[in-house]
Amino acid sequence: MNYKDINFILVNPQLGENVGSCARALKNFGFKRLNLINPTCNWPNEKAKATSVGAKDIINSVRIYKTLEEATSKDDLVIAMSSRVRNTNKKFIKLKDLKLKIKKYRNISILFGPEASGLSNKDISLANNVIKIPNNPKFESINLSHSVILVCYEIFKNANKKELNFKSSYSSKLANKNSINIFVKRLIKSLDKVGFLQPRQKRDSMIININNIFHRFDLSDQELHILQGIFTNLQNRKN
Amino acid sequence: MNYKDINFILVNPQLGENVGSCARALKNFGFKRLNLINPTCNWPNEKAKATSVGAKDIINSVRIYKTLEEATSKDDLVIAMSSRVRNTNKKFIKLKDLKLKIKKYRNISILFGPEASGLSNKDISLANNVIKIPNNPKFESINLSHSVILVCYEIFKNANKKELNFKSSYSSKLANKNSINIFVKRLIKSLDKVGFLQPRQKRDSMIININNIFHRFDLSDQELHILQGIFTNLQNRKN
Repeated sequence: MNYKDINFILVNPQLGENVGSCARALKNFGFKRLNLINPTCNWPNEKAKATSVGAKDIINSVRIYKTLEEATSKDDLVIAMSSRVRNTNKKFIKLKDLKLKIKKYRNISILFGPEASGLSNKDISLANNVIKIPNNPKFESINLSHSVILVCYEIFKNANKKELNFKSSYSSKLANKNSINIFVKRLIKSLDKVGFLQPRQKRDSMIININNIFHRFDLSDQELHILQGIFTNLQNRKN
Repeated sequence: MNYKDINFILVNPQLGENVGSCARALKNFGFKRLNLINPTCNWPNEKAKATSVGAKDIINSVRIYKTLEEATSKDDLVIAMSSRVRNTNKKFIKLKDLKLKIKKYRNISILFGPEASGLSNKDISLANNVIKIPNNPKFESINLSHSVILVCYEIFKNANKKELNFKSSYSSKLANKNSINIFVKRLIKSLDKVGFLQPRQKRDSMIININNIFHRFDLSDQELHILQGIFTNLQNRKN
């Protein structure tokens, strides 16, 4: 399956705001299928539309089901999210391993429980596996849309392994070593003029320090130009 | 440093609800330091308290600063979060590599911009590096508290490598093969009685199929007992 076709199922969601935030979270990571089982909040819901921000398309195509059985009828894998570890004979898998699990299946749903209580044991009994997001054992209750976005992020990150490397659009190329050497030499000349590199026996080590600084900075041509301007102006003011 | 001491800095946050959700997100992963630069929302803020749920301690110890320079004055590493790739000579690092980066530093802040606009170029100029969360290029604007929880999750997950393996508290032990074989034999006996395993030449392959099913299930003693009860009762009803 295309990972983007995974169904996100909110069981009995209580707050429209949360449903909207979940829709936004889905769209942030390229998902589109949001289903609700018997929402406790009214539906359609204006607050959901408001908090979905640019994800109104997902809100408008939300499917409502009366039962979880009906909503998952076409699935061959159902994963239940739970912040509580349950007394049920169901294997916990790790969120980070979900990427491996989903490869083997065609139709997948991930279940999220209502805000106040989480999924019931009956809901969980319809799932193949359970995932608990690893977190602070002293404060485990994660907001509904926060759980959704963490799941979306893990799946997206692993499905796009080629790696989205982000680079600044900054275009000035790195200064080459010759430009930096010219710059440092000019600087030293100015510093000698104002008597900064005294006493004589310390001059060599100070020059090494100055070289260390400016060769480490990965300065661009533009930045080197700015620094040159700064030093020249400071020197002129001194004279 | 202890990763839990990382400062989360919200620059000019506009909505108290978001600040509260950020506090909750921090606490979910064991963080505690939330600082605000010139919040546009009123402070103290009742809505922030409401959405922080169980993280009122973090809301109560929020520090307010007038300038970003002041808030980051003790830091040796400042990371800026940005959903936009900027025209600035600043290296982007990957969110998943943040764990390696933070090991080398003692005092660290992570900056999050205001909801509507994100961090300004001036804010970013005070940072060492920029992180963009990899996501859907067609819908990149992530909710403030969603960005915060993704960062918290990545740091927490990597700081707790020992792995939080979650196991159900379900206590009935796995049925051993002998129990399963006894169960299957009883079942076959019953099926023979009602004439299910006909015609004769198909009996062997059907028995292989039945064995395949029940030996694959990782049934517990309790579950095997339940199945035995079910089959026995069905059979009794037939007679």
